[in-house]
Amino acid sequence: MIITVSRQFASGGRELGKRLADALGLQYYDRELIAEISKTTSLNEDYVVKVLENGGFSNFAFSFAHSIPLTASTPNSVTDVLVAQQKTIKTIAEKGDCVIVGRCADVITLPYNPVRLFVYADDKSKLQRCRERAPEGENYTDKQLLKAFKTIDKGRAKLHDLLATLPWGAREGYDLMINTSRLKIPEIISPLSDLVSEMSATT
Amino acid sequence: MIITVSRQFASGGRELGKRLADALGLQYYDRELIAEISKTTSLNEDYVVKVLENGGFSNFAFSFAHSIPLTASTPNSVTDVLVAQQKTIKTIAEKGDCVIVGRCADVITLPYNPVRLFVYADDKSKLQRCRERAPEGENYTDKQLLKAFKTIDKGRAKLHDLLATLPWGAREGYDLMINTSRLKIPEIISPLSDLVSEMSATT
Repeated sequence: MIITVSRQFASGGRELGKRLADALGLQYYDRELIAEISKTTSLNEDYVVKVLENGGFSNFAFSFAHSIPLTASTPNSVTDVLVAQQKTIKTIAEKGDCVIVGRCADVITLPYNPVRLFVYADDKSKLQRCRERAPEGENYTDKQLLKAFKTIDKGRAKLHDLLATLPWGAREGYDLMINTSRLKIPEIISPLSDLVSEMSATT
Repeated sequence: MIITVSRQFASGGRELGKRLADALGLQYYDRELIAEISKTTSLNEDYVVKVLENGGFSNFAFSFAHSIPLTASTPNSVTDVLVAQQKTIKTIAEKGDCVIVGRCADVITLPYNPVRLFVYADDKSKLQRCRERAPEGENYTDKQLLKAFKTIDKGRAKLHDLLATLPWGAREGYDLMINTSRLKIPEIISPLSDLVSEMSATT
């Protein structure tokens, strides 16, 4: 069983993916991929994160995204990261039984019949989630945060659309799309994991 | 608990909604609304169906859609049907514990905190579903059917967008979007009904 979790920034996709992996006893991959890609490419982890979060397209610094402005990047090193990401995810998909959050895994694992989730939320609940998790002393305004959400999701969409035939977030590219705006994520994990198991079995 | 099921034509939304209602012991409304609206407006049922399937915007005849070309329509009678639909659905929503398929119920029931599903599928599976259910002797080509799907969904979208602030099918307007292309609907009903119950409880 392979589950991919694409998600809007601050929608709770990472939390949902991690809890789903725990409930189903599956390997969980998100930041775990960074170390692997960093090793393969000999580029430092911060740089790899930056490329994969914002696609190397933007210089936006935003602590909640754990990202650091791109410095000394070359077009080649961006490509290296993307190629290494693809190889790493294929290797993981071949082993199976995993949840992969982000990283274009919905497209890269397609030959292995993943259940593809897309997690999204409205601005109000994204702001709330973001503020709850912000490091002390981080004082962005709502306007700044909403702009950041857009910038980060735009980066994700661009990277995704390099590999995909359907645009990032277009429903046709996913098996199940979950709006977390009104949800308490921990409380839906049990029925959601049953549903995803069933979906995986019947596909 | 109120569940609304918006759906692309031939995606299995009606089947999914009916099975969900049965599993959860909820009242099911789809064609049941037609008789009610017909009574309220003194317009015949075939005419009401036609308005609500195609929004009175098209003259498309298509037996699988159970629709009959509009005749002797006036702008007023279209409005009458829409107003009667809205009243009927509000009355049902006040009683609660129901599944309503289509009919802009996602928008009309919003004050009653529904769980809003959107059911969709790819063209290949819609064609297959349509052919399996077609009356004997119905011999449309794939091209004709695909055009019909588009026409009918366009009618639904137009009617929906009369009442909604978000376009029909836009993910922000739904709590859960289900792609039935690779699913056997009966097999996911049990976990799906648990998930929807939990979603209804936490919203």
